[in-house]
Amino acid sequence: MLLRMSNLFLRTLREDPADAEVPSHKLLVRGGYVRRAAPGVYSWLPLGKIVLENVARVVREEMDGIGGQEVLLPALLPREYYEATGRWDDYGDTLFRLQDRKGADYLLGPTHEELFTLLVKGEYSSYKDFPVILYQIQEKFRDEARPRAGVLRGREFHMKDSYSFDIDDEGLQAAYDAHRAAYVRVFERLGLEYVIVSATSGAMGGSASEEFLAVAPTGEDTFVRSTESDYAANVEAVTTPAPAARPIEGLPEAVVHHTPGTATIQTLVDFLNAAGLGRDFVEADTLKNVLVKTRAPGSDEWELLAVGLPGDREVDFKRLEAALEPAEVALLDESDFAANPFLVKGYIGPRALLDNKVRYLVDPRVVTGTAWVTGADRDQHHVIDLVAGRDFTPDGTIDVAEVRDGDPSPDGKGTLYTARGIEIGHIFQLGRKYTDAFQVDALGSDGKPKRITMGSYGIGVSRAVASVVEQSHDDKGIVWPREIAPADVHVVGTGKGDQIEEALRVAGELRDQGLRVLVDDRKGVSPGVKFTDAELLGVPTSVIIGRGLKDGLVELRDRATGEREEVALGDIVERTVAACRG
Amino acid sequence: MLLRMSNLFLRTLREDPADAEVPSHKLLVRGGYVRRAAPGVYSWLPLGKIVLENVARVVREEMDGIGGQEVLLPALLPREYYEATGRWDDYGDTLFRLQDRKGADYLLGPTHEELFTLLVKGEYSSYKDFPVILYQIQEKFRDEARPRAGVLRGREFHMKDSYSFDIDDEGLQAAYDAHRAAYVRVFERLGLEYVIVSATSGAMGGSASEEFLAVAPTGEDTFVRSTESDYAANVEAVTTPAPAARPIEGLPEAVVHHTPGTATIQTLVDFLNAAGLGRDFVEADTLKNVLVKTRAPGSDEWELLAVGLPGDREVDFKRLEAALEPAEVALLDESDFAANPFLVKGYIGPRALLDNKVRYLVDPRVVTGTAWVTGADRDQHHVIDLVAGRDFTPDGTIDVAEVRDGDPSPDGKGTLYTARGIEIGHIFQLGRKYTDAFQVDALGSDGKPKRITMGSYGIGVSRAVASVVEQSHDDKGIVWPREIAPADVHVVGTGKGDQIEEALRVAGELRDQGLRVLVDDRKGVSPGVKFTDAELLGVPTSVIIGRGLKDGLVELRDRATGEREEVALGDIVERTVAACRG
Repeated sequence: MLLRMSNLFLRTLREDPADAEVPSHKLLVRGGYVRRAAPGVYSWLPLGKIVLENVARVVREEMDGIGGQEVLLPALLPREYYEATGRWDDYGDTLFRLQDRKGADYLLGPTHEELFTLLVKGEYSSYKDFPVILYQIQEKFRDEARPRAGVLRGREFHMKDSYSFDIDDEGLQAAYDAHRAAYVRVFERLGLEYVIVSATSGAMGGSASEEFLAVAPTGEDTFVRSTESDYAANVEAVTTPAPAARPIEGLPEAVVHHTPGTATIQTLVDFLNAAGLGRDFVEADTLKNVLVKTRAPGSDEWELLAVGLPGDREVDFKRLEAALEPAEVALLDESDFAANPFLVKGYIGPRALLDNKVRYLVDPRVVTGTAWVTGADRDQHHVIDLVAGRDFTPDGTIDVAEVRDGDPSPDGKGTLYTARGIEIGHIFQLGRKYTDAFQVDALGSDGKPKRITMGSYGIGVSRAVASVVEQSHDDKGIVWPREIAPADVHVVGTGKGDQIEEALRVAGELRDQGLRVLVDDRKGVSPGVKFTDAELLGVPTSVIIGRGLKDGLVELRDRATGEREEVALGDIVERTVAACRG
Repeated sequence: MLLRMSNLFLRTLREDPADAEVPSHKLLVRGGYVRRAAPGVYSWLPLGKIVLENVARVVREEMDGIGGQEVLLPALLPREYYEATGRWDDYGDTLFRLQDRKGADYLLGPTHEELFTLLVKGEYSSYKDFPVILYQIQEKFRDEARPRAGVLRGREFHMKDSYSFDIDDEGLQAAYDAHRAAYVRVFERLGLEYVIVSATSGAMGGSASEEFLAVAPTGEDTFVRSTESDYAANVEAVTTPAPAARPIEGLPEAVVHHTPGTATIQTLVDFLNAAGLGRDFVEADTLKNVLVKTRAPGSDEWELLAVGLPGDREVDFKRLEAALEPAEVALLDESDFAANPFLVKGYIGPRALLDNKVRYLVDPRVVTGTAWVTGADRDQHHVIDLVAGRDFTPDGTIDVAEVRDGDPSPDGKGTLYTARGIEIGHIFQLGRKYTDAFQVDALGSDGKPKRITMGSYGIGVSRAVASVVEQSHDDKGIVWPREIAPADVHVVGTGKGDQIEEALRVAGELRDQGLRVLVDDRKGVSPGVKFTDAELLGVPTSVIIGRGLKDGLVELRDRATGEREEVALGDIVERTVAACRG
């Protein structure tokens, strides 16, 4: 490959685009890699197309390496398949929907679980046919509410999606593990710093799931990691270690107090500390009972749910939704309180909840033998020293309290802190959600039908390009890892003599050595502009053919380290090849 | 590449799909290359994906060869761009339209003229920037009224589209010629029998245009070709050679006759031949005047147009539409005749047309000095010996008479006959339609702005796959040309001994020699099924490792010729490599 900048369809920009906030958006636009066509919809220009294809190649090689078979499915999909799995509705506004000339409903594929499931159902029927892993690299469409950050979160984007089909859970686990290992190799080759976090499922349905997050302060995903281990997880997936149960014997009796004007935790604590009870209270001594309502999928009935948690913590609604999925969850409104007069706002306690058969789940910290200040189910009254396991027995635990910096890491090593990342990969044990929907069975070795189990696995190919730039840039421009760089070497000819001709000659030789070469052979462009462009474009190695040429000297530059070295012209090809091949 | 049929995601079918009529549809489905996802929407399975990618590679190489630069534009496009060029409406029901969650209008790109034009406008501004050729290989979407024939006419399909931008007409011509030559190379490499026909423009706007048609009886496009030369053209583009003008002197006077009951050509000829006029008349002696109305783009006014042509020919409405484009054309209704009482149905002649300022265009055969029987503008009357150039002078010629088998070829060699083909490529000098719409200028060398001129060029990549199958198959299956075959060699192991192990060993060696290998290593599948599958799949070369193995013999087969040869096992790798490398 030899690209000449004198005719390359490339114009760099000195100014950041007005709508750009994150580095990858700014630099990919300024470097002429992408151009915006519509909100969240981008065109890939020649150098961008090369980088995108390089990422796709890495993904393809690693998918082939685990026995994945490449196919290509359409983007235009009939409603009926997504209706069968409920995703036509579940996806909400995020799905692009359209009608054809006959009024039939279609959608633009956001992911392809349905079609792959049907494809396998159509071809395979015996346990001998399995396992199989199919993948494609293809455009996906999602009508994001807030498309932003260039190709980081687009509405039309490039994704590798793969699907595993197995006869049993062990097979699914093996396919999942193989994908996990392949993803590690992909992201290592892309030079990305990433974490693997436990994840919840979203609209996909299913169980075990991990996300690969590229660590970046500009990331949209929050996750927590440990100060002292590799532990990392989505906030939704953090598990709170339960303390050991404590002995109940000898604990004081529960006593109801008149606590006027204490409908909030802070006013309650202040009241108690001012009440001369002979001890100090903090918010963590109180048990807050938060009421919500839930509705099972397909049901019309809302059911009350109470969540009991230490008063110094709020319920994290995202964690709550994840914990209750696939049920819906909503806050109570006034009519709910009116219909349940035993709920005394600000003074709700376990007693009334349990007496009235409200499902009551508590934070893992609320173990047997812990004593709490909590509502007494009477206006202006609280009870002190209400002991879990003695005075009330909740229906179970639910781990939905907010996670805070400094909380102990679930693996027992260090404490948690919050970081941000970009989701670049997702692996997912779907189980039988889709094969149940489409009744995909294979005849087992025992002659009986077995329901197939399934995994789905995604890599954001276009997003990976932007994620690399988020992590690998400086104030001058992009610093591409060699594996996906648009070229191995950028040969720059500067000056008014025969430097440009010499640059073309050297470039040709480097190309003949098998390198992918970009050569700046533009006439009438100043050396400063050429150097600025080279740094912005971010090719790993540069060869500068400039004023030193008259003395037989050229310069070899390394974009990442900034190192520069004068090299004799006669040695430059060999030295450059060595630098590029490392 | 080494694909093992024991785990390849491939199931062949013995029966033709119920909806399939043409060979490529039947064979691509039966061979497990594609599967239908929705009407006109197909999935490409592993072997199909390989063939599709092979075609794309050939196209890419030839586009790179003429200096094309590859980019990748989105499929989801905002309405505003297509509104600016009128194509939002012009495309009619064929355009897939949709709205995003904010109610903004989008379309799925049928071709990308608008976006490429805007892209170039955004980056380039000086005559020094040009010429440039950009291309992409990408999914296109068209809501065909009658999707049919599998991937031959789909609603989501793969296309190479390229666009040339030039500062002047000579540049456009050069880009056009380069594309034409590249297309010739592409279709030669794909092993296609094709013709290049002059074409009209359709909704694209513009002037010079040629289509590449793969010759196939199942093709949707009709064209005419010469019995004795390479001449080929769309029916719309056939030009009728005008005979030389004849001397007027000495021709008899025009005489009006009472010709009762002769409103049709046939009744007229019969009447004249029975009238004892001392000569014989044929239909070609009569001049039929056909009335239509036309309306210029953007106008509300319909205008009358009369077409005069020999009475043995009908007006070909497609040729008429093409000749009058971009004006609309329609037949007259009763109210039009009522509004123009000088039009005497069945007896319309040049006189009344010219007297009443009706635009009057005649067939090229109506040259000066030809004498005609035609209407006398009075009910039941005709005029005989009305001489063109003496008794009437039309406003010009129009070449819209039906073309018939046996008509002389416009190049003077042989006669025309009708054939059918599949449009696999289209090259098009758009001119300034799009650059006018978006005001794309470059500063010329004289310091003045110059309007850029443009070409657009398409190759149906998925359609080319099907076209190859249409031309290259037999009753047993597909016969792939080597360049795009899913594999170079198909190694088939049959029998219950160590044939399958030996097949895998030979396949491995062939792979190590750089061949792309498909090996049938399925156990428990009969030799007959394996041979049938091999012929259906259509890999050019097969190696059969079967019963002869015990005597050290294997068989080398050529799919196209059917030749079979016994080869010593020790020679098979070398012989196979030679067969595949030709």
